[in-house]
Amino acid sequence: MTTRTLRFAVLGAGRIGRIHAGNLAHRIPGAQLTALCDVIPENLAAAAAGLAVPKTFSDYREVLRDPEVDAVVICTPTNTHSQVILDAAAAGKQIFCEKPIDLSIGKIQAINEEVRRRGVRLMVGFNRRFDPTFEKVRELVAAGKVGEPHILRITSRDPGPPPEEYIRASGGIFLDMTIHDFDMARYLLASEVTEVYARAAVLVDPAIGKAGDWDTAVVTLSFANGALGAIDNSRKAAYGYDQRVEVFGSAGMAAARNQTPDTHVYCDGAGIHSAQPLHFFLERYAESYLREMRAFVDAVTRQRPVPVDGNDGLMAVAIAVAAAQSVAERRPVKLTEVYPRSVPCPAV
Amino acid sequence: MTTRTLRFAVLGAGRIGRIHAGNLAHRIPGAQLTALCDVIPENLAAAAAGLAVPKTFSDYREVLRDPEVDAVVICTPTNTHSQVILDAAAAGKQIFCEKPIDLSIGKIQAINEEVRRRGVRLMVGFNRRFDPTFEKVRELVAAGKVGEPHILRITSRDPGPPPEEYIRASGGIFLDMTIHDFDMARYLLASEVTEVYARAAVLVDPAIGKAGDWDTAVVTLSFANGALGAIDNSRKAAYGYDQRVEVFGSAGMAAARNQTPDTHVYCDGAGIHSAQPLHFFLERYAESYLREMRAFVDAVTRQRPVPVDGNDGLMAVAIAVAAAQSVAERRPVKLTEVYPRSVPCPAV
Amino acid sequence: MTTRTLRFAVLGAGRIGRIHAGNLAHRIPGAQLTALCDVIPENLAAAAAGLAVPKTFSDYREVLRDPEVDAVVICTPTNTHSQVILDAAAAGKQIFCEKPIDLSIGKIQAINEEVRRRGVRLMVGFNRRFDPTFEKVRELVAAGKVGEPHILRITSRDPGPPPEEYIRASGGIFLDMTIHDFDMARYLLASEVTEVYARAAVLVDPAIGKAGDWDTAVVTLSFANGALGAIDNSRKAAYGYDQRVEVFGSAGMAAARNQTPDTHVYCDGAGIHSAQPLHFFLERYAESYLREMRAFVDAVTRQRPVPVDGNDGLMAVAIAVAAAQSVAERRPVKLTEVYPRSVPCPAV
Amino acid sequence: MTTRTLRFAVLGAGRIGRIHAGNLAHRIPGAQLTALCDVIPENLAAAAAGLAVPKTFSDYREVLRDPEVDAVVICTPTNTHSQVILDAAAAGKQIFCEKPIDLSIGKIQAINEEVRRRGVRLMVGFNRRFDPTFEKVRELVAAGKVGEPHILRITSRDPGPPPEEYIRASGGIFLDMTIHDFDMARYLLASEVTEVYARAAVLVDPAIGKAGDWDTAVVTLSFANGALGAIDNSRKAAYGYDQRVEVFGSAGMAAARNQTPDTHVYCDGAGIHSAQPLHFFLERYAESYLREMRAFVDAVTRQRPVPVDGNDGLMAVAIAVAAAQSVAERRPVKLTEVYPRSVPCPAV
Repeated sequence: MTTRTLRFAVLGAGRIGRIHAGNLAHRIPGAQLTALCDVIPENLAAAAAGLAVPKTFSDYREVLRDPEVDAVVICTPTNTHSQVILDAAAAGKQIFCEKPIDLSIGKIQAINEEVRRRGVRLMVGFNRRFDPTFEKVRELVAAGKVGEPHILRITSRDPGPPPEEYIRASGGIFLDMTIHDFDMARYLLASEVTEVYARAAVLVDPAIGKAGDWDTAVVTLSFANGALGAIDNSRKAAYGYDQRVEVFGSAGMAAARNQTPDTHVYCDGAGIHSAQPLHFFLERYAESYLREMRAFVDAVTRQRPVPVDGNDGLMAVAIAVAAAQSVAERRPVKLTEVYPRSVPCPAV
Repeated sequence: MTTRTLRFAVLGAGRIGRIHAGNLAHRIPGAQLTALCDVIPENLAAAAAGLAVPKTFSDYREVLRDPEVDAVVICTPTNTHSQVILDAAAAGKQIFCEKPIDLSIGKIQAINEEVRRRGVRLMVGFNRRFDPTFEKVRELVAAGKVGEPHILRITSRDPGPPPEEYIRASGGIFLDMTIHDFDMARYLLASEVTEVYARAAVLVDPAIGKAGDWDTAVVTLSFANGALGAIDNSRKAAYGYDQRVEVFGSAGMAAARNQTPDTHVYCDGAGIHSAQPLHFFLERYAESYLREMRAFVDAVTRQRPVPVDGNDGLMAVAIAVAAAQSVAERRPVKLTEVYPRSVPCPAV
Repeated sequence: MTTRTLRFAVLGAGRIGRIHAGNLAHRIPGAQLTALCDVIPENLAAAAAGLAVPKTFSDYREVLRDPEVDAVVICTPTNTHSQVILDAAAAGKQIFCEKPIDLSIGKIQAINEEVRRRGVRLMVGFNRRFDPTFEKVRELVAAGKVGEPHILRITSRDPGPPPEEYIRASGGIFLDMTIHDFDMARYLLASEVTEVYARAAVLVDPAIGKAGDWDTAVVTLSFANGALGAIDNSRKAAYGYDQRVEVFGSAGMAAARNQTPDTHVYCDGAGIHSAQPLHFFLERYAESYLREMRAFVDAVTRQRPVPVDGNDGLMAVAIAVAAAQSVAERRPVKLTEVYPRSVPCPAV
Repeated sequence: MTTRTLRFAVLGAGRIGRIHAGNLAHRIPGAQLTALCDVIPENLAAAAAGLAVPKTFSDYREVLRDPEVDAVVICTPTNTHSQVILDAAAAGKQIFCEKPIDLSIGKIQAINEEVRRRGVRLMVGFNRRFDPTFEKVRELVAAGKVGEPHILRITSRDPGPPPEEYIRASGGIFLDMTIHDFDMARYLLASEVTEVYARAAVLVDPAIGKAGDWDTAVVTLSFANGALGAIDNSRKAAYGYDQRVEVFGSAGMAAARNQTPDTHVYCDGAGIHSAQPLHFFLERYAESYLREMRAFVDAVTRQRPVPVDGNDGLMAVAIAVAAAQSVAERRPVKLTEVYPRSVPCPAV
């Protein structure tokens, strides 16, 4: 049997949808872009232009009925994810869904079960795992180069906050932004988070506080393997998108530094100057978006497990929920409190 | 009136005592080394050799009676600090004391009051404040270059743990090791810590756990100005002494990278290689020890306030005590719980 | 009048030809890949696969007769460039030609004249000018940030030598490899080279010497604006592709550091380790190949001068010829000796 | 027999003399500062203050008659070096002389012979060899870590030119400034220079040209082992003292980066900013001055060869003389032309 080309429909033609559509159109061996779908005609038209996509739809249910679509990439608003996944699974489509699957732990559990029952694959879009530098750090950790992991540090700061309306629908900083760091933490250490303590503040913009959210956070994580973690977040770094991780262990440390658009250095009487980090996630993670979709295509066509599955999607949400609860209640929160089936804290 | 040379006695001829004695002997304008004191004759002889110090003593009380001694540098074991300070103050000597003043907040308060009453100066040896790089970071923060501080990060990892007997007498990792970071936090942000959450673990050596201490810690700090802080500590970094800080604010970030014994780069088929950090505090902070003593001499001879006073000594201990309590009780601890006169947490 | 899409034929489907074809197929607005041509059927088939190119040819003269081809990209062997350019110009095609135009200064002069007469554009593939980092250095120089340029340094070292047969047909290290640095020198300083002194050696592989070439070189350049330059080359750097430049002037310095596939750092007991440079030109200059073709399309469609023209192609060859003569005669060679119409040396 | 303390007289109490005197006074085991000598009373008084030097002299010949002086450090003007060395050798003193020994190759040969005849040691002050970073590069080369050396690069740029009167007496840029790089070249490669090609220009200040000197230079070196070298110099780098070397060979590269007064990083909307290099040689090479004198004391007291001897002093001058001749005659100059006893160029 020969592996055949996987025919994709991208659902949601916003910023992320266009990235996936562009990659699927030309740059992913074994995949082709067959359809694009968006409820907003202008979005659809703007995205379709230049992609030469054969079919466009305004209703995703029509896409799911199309036998020429093998797989869907769900880039619709978060509050639609669960229904679209369930429908796509019922239609037998392979599913790639942007993070988060849903904001409710219970719903995600139900979705994961249904997907399993339907026998389709569900991959969650934690694209940063596919960034070459983070992957290198993970490889060094997995190869034992840092020894037993003791301390994880993640700094994750955006160049600027999203619009207030985005904030209101986002589920809050932990479910929207830190969720990437929670997944990164699990990925880098290959160990489950057992307890979370989070402190958050509104320091960037009072409007974010009025919207019921925070813009600055520091989170302490405890891991099942005994390691400790510290994450810090800000919605606004004046010098650009700051994305650093470090895993410190008994034998050494592996870290990821920021990346820059160029490597120039300028020296004058005031000092030594070099470029700011790459502007934001579209630039910083362009390669990771491409590589994650290649990994999905590869997993589906070779009938292997996807590298980021529904359980990964669930755990990151569970940690985020615990973090939000920790801030609200000003105390450390055990993961089992929000998701009883998670790994219990080790006795101390 | 001409400023005259300040005549020093160094009390305690161990590792730190010898550093201060060596600096006072030759390298500090306006100071001279007049006496050295240690209860262990071998220590005293070893330290005196090569310093050409005029007088040696085995009992510090004799030193305090010597009218040719203007100032004392207290490098004796921590549990003797309070008595020596009180005696030195009674004798009218100017006092420089290694950190911590004492492990008890109440005792430090009493000492500070007594020192004030006696009209002598007490400076506490938080030498890292005098490191040129940390001083530069502080200057950038003070000059408003980072804007309003939002996040403080400190990574402080030793190359290897001290002997078990040292651990047992140390007061624990927070009072012995993290105390430097607590002082650094207050110094860099110029704002008081209001709440502490600490997680600690024994990951480096079970013997440290048996001694009742921790070797790995992650600490979250809340500051009166609204900023949040994250500190991580380890007693053993395979790659050497890791001493980094970063202050992130509304307008930018100021950070201190590690320092190395040389700036070579070696490139081969395996990658790009450069030197490990300077080995340990004697190397990393050699300059800061010299500069702090110059600052003390300067403050005393010009009759100005010392740059690190008894209150600084007290606050760092209070934060450390709160951190230890936080670990024990698995909850965030307000500074006012351990030191009621500290700045209260802002209402949120 | 609306700008229409420029229809391209790529002539020569080797390594570079495939890069240009791939870029033209999907990634360059205003361009489309219409035809591919190679005399070796396997090359042609391998390159055409996956590009969905409408037409393939084995004889470039047929391509030139095709009215649906507006522009050609010449990636055939160097010794065919001059004839293909002349034929393409006669056919009225816009021309992009890989470097060098030819190894003979006289022939290049004739070609440039003919191209001018025919009224088509000829751009030469000095792709490195379009690397974002070198472009940034050029911008800093052009903006006066380094003041008057005084010293130019270029280090250019390959990860490994090409096959011996390639060496034999290459025209020698200066016309094959250093030619890029000579063009970079003119680009960065925007001043003509007036004199060259070159020293070369066979240190990497005696086979290169047997083939009549050198594998290691150090070149001193004198510029019309008074600046001095130093270039060093090697055919084999154990640590990978080393591509650095620096322009030093009265007000400062602008430099380009190497680029790496990732930004990880690994620290252990042996030191601090990071990634080697990007492997070779295909990786290091992937972006510059794309950007140079965009610039060509832009120049043609907007009817503007191409950014690297026939004179640039000629000058780089003239400097290379002077360098080879300098090595042979063990003396500095003036550019006017090999190309009398070049800028004369200033009187000293 | 026990090694006894070496009693030193420093001749010449200018900038360098005071550095050596300060080091000898306190910081060099096995040495003591016994006498200081300068013809200018103010110089002498200024230098003696704070050093507690037992004896001061205005005439070096009196110093040489003092039986309590074992060794002299010659920091007098260059044109007096040869006479002082000859007199000191005649008096049986051990000799440390600042570079250059003399500007005449013939005179240096005669001095070296006389010193050998008298049986005293003569060490020349090429202090940079004792810089920890350059020493590390040398160690890597000596250990074979770069394989066979192919290319040497040295960048050496001062923060600003010396006064015009200094320039006039200096012997020119090659004998005054590049001489350090010539010695560094021989030290790093452990191979003799066989041929020199130098290009020089007046780009920094026309007054330097009027004084008959150059302020900018690029030098190509050929070595007996086949390696090639490129040195660039400037009398004025706007960003400070730029001191870098790199040795590239068959197995890798070892390089020395600049050193900075601190390791802070400041990030804002304009980029990433760090400190300029250490200001000038007094700061950059403070440690090397100390370590070279320790090496001299060590060699004399253990009766071992000095690490930088009269032949090293001679060879650096010979290369400088060849460089000056190369500029004047606009051609490469063989070392044997200026110093017939040097290693001949290998036949090519």
